[in-house]
Amino acid sequence: MRIEELNWMDVEAYLQKDDRLILVVGACEQHGYLSLMTDIKIPVALADAASQRTGALVAPPLNFGVSPHFGTYPGTITLRLTTFLDTLEDMIRSVYRHGFRRLVFVNGHGGNDPARTRISEIIDGLPGLKVSWYSWWNAPRVTLVAEKHGLKSYHAAWIEAFPFVRVAEIPQGVKEPVLSKEILGAEGSRRLYGDGVFGGPYQMEDAILDEIFQTAVQDIVELLTVPAS
Amino acid sequence: MRIEELNWMDVEAYLQKDDRLILVVGACEQHGYLSLMTDIKIPVALADAASQRTGALVAPPLNFGVSPHFGTYPGTITLRLTTFLDTLEDMIRSVYRHGFRRLVFVNGHGGNDPARTRISEIIDGLPGLKVSWYSWWNAPRVTLVAEKHGLKSYHAAWIEAFPFVRVAEIPQGVKEPVLSKEILGAEGSRRLYGDGVFGGPYQMEDAILDEIFQTAVQDIVELLTVPAS
Amino acid sequence: MRIEELNWMDVEAYLQKDDRLILVVGACEQHGYLSLMTDIKIPVALADAASQRTGALVAPPLNFGVSPHFGTYPGTITLRLTTFLDTLEDMIRSVYRHGFRRLVFVNGHGGNDPARTRISEIIDGLPGLKVSWYSWWNAPRVTLVAEKHGLKSYHAAWIEAFPFVRVAEIPQGVKEPVLSKEILGAEGSRRLYGDGVFGGPYQMEDAILDEIFQTAVQDIVELLTVPAS
Amino acid sequence: MRIEELNWMDVEAYLQKDDRLILVVGACEQHGYLSLMTDIKIPVALADAASQRTGALVAPPLNFGVSPHFGTYPGTITLRLTTFLDTLEDMIRSVYRHGFRRLVFVNGHGGNDPARTRISEIIDGLPGLKVSWYSWWNAPRVTLVAEKHGLKSYHAAWIEAFPFVRVAEIPQGVKEPVLSKEILGAEGSRRLYGDGVFGGPYQMEDAILDEIFQTAVQDIVELLTVPAS
Amino acid sequence: MRIEELNWMDVEAYLQKDDRLILVVGACEQHGYLSLMTDIKIPVALADAASQRTGALVAPPLNFGVSPHFGTYPGTITLRLTTFLDTLEDMIRSVYRHGFRRLVFVNGHGGNDPARTRISEIIDGLPGLKVSWYSWWNAPRVTLVAEKHGLKSYHAAWIEAFPFVRVAEIPQGVKEPVLSKEILGAEGSRRLYGDGVFGGPYQMEDAILDEIFQTAVQDIVELLTVPAS
Amino acid sequence: MRIEELNWMDVEAYLQKDDRLILVVGACEQHGYLSLMTDIKIPVALADAASQRTGALVAPPLNFGVSPHFGTYPGTITLRLTTFLDTLEDMIRSVYRHGFRRLVFVNGHGGNDPARTRISEIIDGLPGLKVSWYSWWNAPRVTLVAEKHGLKSYHAAWIEAFPFVRVAEIPQGVKEPVLSKEILGAEGSRRLYGDGVFGGPYQMEDAILDEIFQTAVQDIVELLTVPAS
Repeated sequence: MRIEELNWMDVEAYLQKDDRLILVVGACEQHGYLSLMTDIKIPVALADAASQRTGALVAPPLNFGVSPHFGTYPGTITLRLTTFLDTLEDMIRSVYRHGFRRLVFVNGHGGNDPARTRISEIIDGLPGLKVSWYSWWNAPRVTLVAEKHGLKSYHAAWIEAFPFVRVAEIPQGVKEPVLSKEILGAEGSRRLYGDGVFGGPYQMEDAILDEIFQTAVQDIVELLTVPAS
Repeated sequence: MRIEELNWMDVEAYLQKDDRLILVVGACEQHGYLSLMTDIKIPVALADAASQRTGALVAPPLNFGVSPHFGTYPGTITLRLTTFLDTLEDMIRSVYRHGFRRLVFVNGHGGNDPARTRISEIIDGLPGLKVSWYSWWNAPRVTLVAEKHGLKSYHAAWIEAFPFVRVAEIPQGVKEPVLSKEILGAEGSRRLYGDGVFGGPYQMEDAILDEIFQTAVQDIVELLTVPAS
Repeated sequence: MRIEELNWMDVEAYLQKDDRLILVVGACEQHGYLSLMTDIKIPVALADAASQRTGALVAPPLNFGVSPHFGTYPGTITLRLTTFLDTLEDMIRSVYRHGFRRLVFVNGHGGNDPARTRISEIIDGLPGLKVSWYSWWNAPRVTLVAEKHGLKSYHAAWIEAFPFVRVAEIPQGVKEPVLSKEILGAEGSRRLYGDGVFGGPYQMEDAILDEIFQTAVQDIVELLTVPAS
Repeated sequence: MRIEELNWMDVEAYLQKDDRLILVVGACEQHGYLSLMTDIKIPVALADAASQRTGALVAPPLNFGVSPHFGTYPGTITLRLTTFLDTLEDMIRSVYRHGFRRLVFVNGHGGNDPARTRISEIIDGLPGLKVSWYSWWNAPRVTLVAEKHGLKSYHAAWIEAFPFVRVAEIPQGVKEPVLSKEILGAEGSRRLYGDGVFGGPYQMEDAILDEIFQTAVQDIVELLTVPAS
Repeated sequence: MRIEELNWMDVEAYLQKDDRLILVVGACEQHGYLSLMTDIKIPVALADAASQRTGALVAPPLNFGVSPHFGTYPGTITLRLTTFLDTLEDMIRSVYRHGFRRLVFVNGHGGNDPARTRISEIIDGLPGLKVSWYSWWNAPRVTLVAEKHGLKSYHAAWIEAFPFVRVAEIPQGVKEPVLSKEILGAEGSRRLYGDGVFGGPYQMEDAILDEIFQTAVQDIVELLTVPAS
Repeated sequence: MRIEELNWMDVEAYLQKDDRLILVVGACEQHGYLSLMTDIKIPVALADAASQRTGALVAPPLNFGVSPHFGTYPGTITLRLTTFLDTLEDMIRSVYRHGFRRLVFVNGHGGNDPARTRISEIIDGLPGLKVSWYSWWNAPRVTLVAEKHGLKSYHAAWIEAFPFVRVAEIPQGVKEPVLSKEILGAEGSRRLYGDGVFGGPYQMEDAILDEIFQTAVQDIVELLTVPAS
């Protein structure tokens, strides 16, 4: 169930019996051959699936994240880190005011992880609030699934190549992983990463992707079962 | 055509022949009996229609706007004005870097209008950039259509009650318009506005709504015909 | 009665029996042939007149406002929107601390209107505070007076050409109104607006200006009659 | 000559032959028995006098300064230090854009002195700009005049008690100077300073005040004679 | 060689022949039984050792980092994330201005890692600058050393218990690792972590610690061998 | 006693019987022939001496201060004023949370003095907190000692030339004091100040320096004897 399907009276009714909310964050940034909105489409799909199994409400996604290093790849729309942190804080304070108390962020983009710090800074001032942050692609159980199949996770590679984010032909084969010892800006990244994929197989069979997906959904479901304060 | 349907190579190709971008801003806020995402759903629909007629690309919507006065209506997720301004600036600088030069913001929410000021502040530093801002519900031609039918525009009332934002039964009849001489915060607004509708007929026949919609689309199409620098 | 004529003990005595304060905001910006301080001189005059009729105290004007689009007209001193918002917030918090509870902002400049949003954001945290914001030149009753005489209001044109802001010869005749579909920065504005007047008659007979003035004063007086909490 | 007496064409003409500007900053804050606007009225008077002798243009005063320690004295309207710094920066950038290159700030309030740091931070990025900052009450020559008469300068005491800032009876006699070893906030200041005067004689004969005044004017005149770059 | 042993002429001379600088960041925060300055003392020691082997200059450490989650443990002095980011940016811009072009941050504290994002944001605007960021305790080679000995790295446990940060008796034995699924503020952290150690052996034999230390030094030395632009 | 010699349990124990803390601020900036860390080394030495006589705890120094005007002297690492103010505020709020209530800042650098304003702004919101700020080189008693020997205090000259900050040969003789009527940025300062010393004797006999040092220590000791609230 998504907020967009409800009016405020519906949310008020929901809050009479539940105080959980799934918030979706990600990025609009280059993902090689995949959709520029890959980092939103995946966590939205995960959130919807977890919502269906738990009845927890899903907030509209914040469609932009922190992607300074991809700023020269056309279509990347990036927020400064401070803008992103302020946005997250505003979202949290908004829903706390209504009575939401158990928040699960489903995050599709590594660049957003510093938000955990801002949440830690403000949470003591919001009594009763519990917040968890789930970055799906490197969650421990997801990593175990990947390792079971002898795979590692790289940006814009197989682990993100779900059917619903494919917008073009994807190369066959495997890209030699690219690594930087320096911190890269947008210009350095484009020179280094070329097509934007960080390495590994470009795609993977659906069964493995589905196993990854279901594992992540299960993780989120468990985060949503945290007891109310 | 939306950015989400493309990868970065597609956007790079688009920029070889076009430099227009439609950006959608609105709010996730109470709209009486209508969807909490009314202010996003309408401009997205307008943007898609204008895109279809012009070939201009559409960016993902910023799903949250400036709604401090509705902060006590459950489901309203509001950004501080400064957060919103910073977000808009980041979006503009991101796409300017790629080569977009003609931007049309389709705005679904009055509280976002101060963004015009920030755009004015930064535009001299971005040579060749042209930005227009279209707040559809009170655009001159849209207002003429409403007046032709003896109607005025109020928040969450008939003019926003498009079929695609209805999520519940909508009352029949007309609400006496509610006005405040003071600047209201979230608490004062809720006391004053009750169900959240500012006044006028709760709904309207589809033919009039369609006329409104087509008029707004036509406006946006014309804004998109501004010549390149 | 102005704060400048009082010392702090006088204000303390005033607060024993009244909690109203008139605050004046405007701009130091190009006004065509009129004084660069037109947007301050007019609201100061209105505030003084309203003070005389009500006994409400008048604060010193904030002499600078938000005028990014006029930044290339010599003599325009503009604040960034964020600076202006912070200043307004500081002013409000200062006088709230002393016990002022009914504030009327008399505003001379359209670019300042986003301040309404900041006020809405902070007002729930200031119990008992009532704030109204009066932008005189497009107030409903003032607009009715203009319409009665077949006139429309434009920047730096007849409606601002009070005798006390004239510092040079003003042209006879009428300027074709100038409109922009784009958001203009300082450079675009200067190219478009030339002498800085937006259109309409350059001046008007004193009787009509006086009717405008008295109407605005009456509006402010009524805003000052809001009952204390 | 003040900006308020000019329109933008006049300032443009002025800039053809001169690039000096006097800017006035001060405070709206408790001054014991004197006007709450003492810290503006004095530098405005000094600026006008220096303008008359040099032909340099005078900008409208910023009527509010940094007075956190007087926040509980009614009528004190204080800006946060950061707000004040941003305001000064905006003022400087505004007039620099027009071509002003020699700026003299005439400052009436000690709490504003940190602005010197912000000016130092931005000045390398504004080629050709020269800025001086004149805090009149403790300028070396003014201090010499006071010392010649066996006097020391204290807030709200004799040295500020010019006839044009007197709004009430001023006590006879001398107040024992009050000093704090701690940094005081608004509450501590009010407890310590009582009537708001820091010490010394409450008033002084006009001849000495006039000598002080003329000395300060002479200082400002000399700062205005700095050669153009 | 440390900046504190030099005057500005010495640094000017150094820059004639080298453009490398080691910057040290960490935290002043609870480390269980170890010194509150553990996260500074270790990277300072690493930096000094790497300096000795390479001749690269070492800047004074920033003694405070981002530790909101330890705010209730006495002695923890924490910066907001935004303060820390601004500080890092200021440090980088300062030394860039002098001609330093190859910077290696030796970081002692995980909470500081978001600084990488700010560096990525600004680096395109600083041509020729190369920055690397070394968080010693979880660097790949250091992790391999730990794994070789069957050890994992935990906050305030064996891996940080170098002789030079011991200020009290350290417990024998092993603490059951403590993990949180939620994001913790300062209050939640103290409840959960008790003595402040996250788990694992409280101390370790010197030979293993020395191997860890030398491995980290070697890593830094290699980062310092990046060629100049 | 320094925080670095303690763990958090030690500080908790200290707070059972004392609530005083000495905080050290200064700068990493050019000091002519002296160490770039002169403004830290001196207040650290003063703080340690005062700690020894009073038992008050000493926090780690903030190694960077506000030195925009020395930005072109190699080795100067300067914070923007706002960064510095935020850092000070974070430090104060951190230690207030633990129970420290009597803070003495020992400051080695004049550019940091605006911090007094920020402290004044926040102190009313921190009940029971007492903060004093000691800028040693121009403290009244220190000035008296200098005057007794016919000396004046100048940046990087004799008064700072303690043996423990000497890193090179120091010139004999006396430099003609250099003064600026304008506010200088980094470029103007370097042109004006040359070797970075502002004037006066380059060095002084140890006995006088020791008298200066002991006088400052005595001042700090007295500030530390302020009674608890």
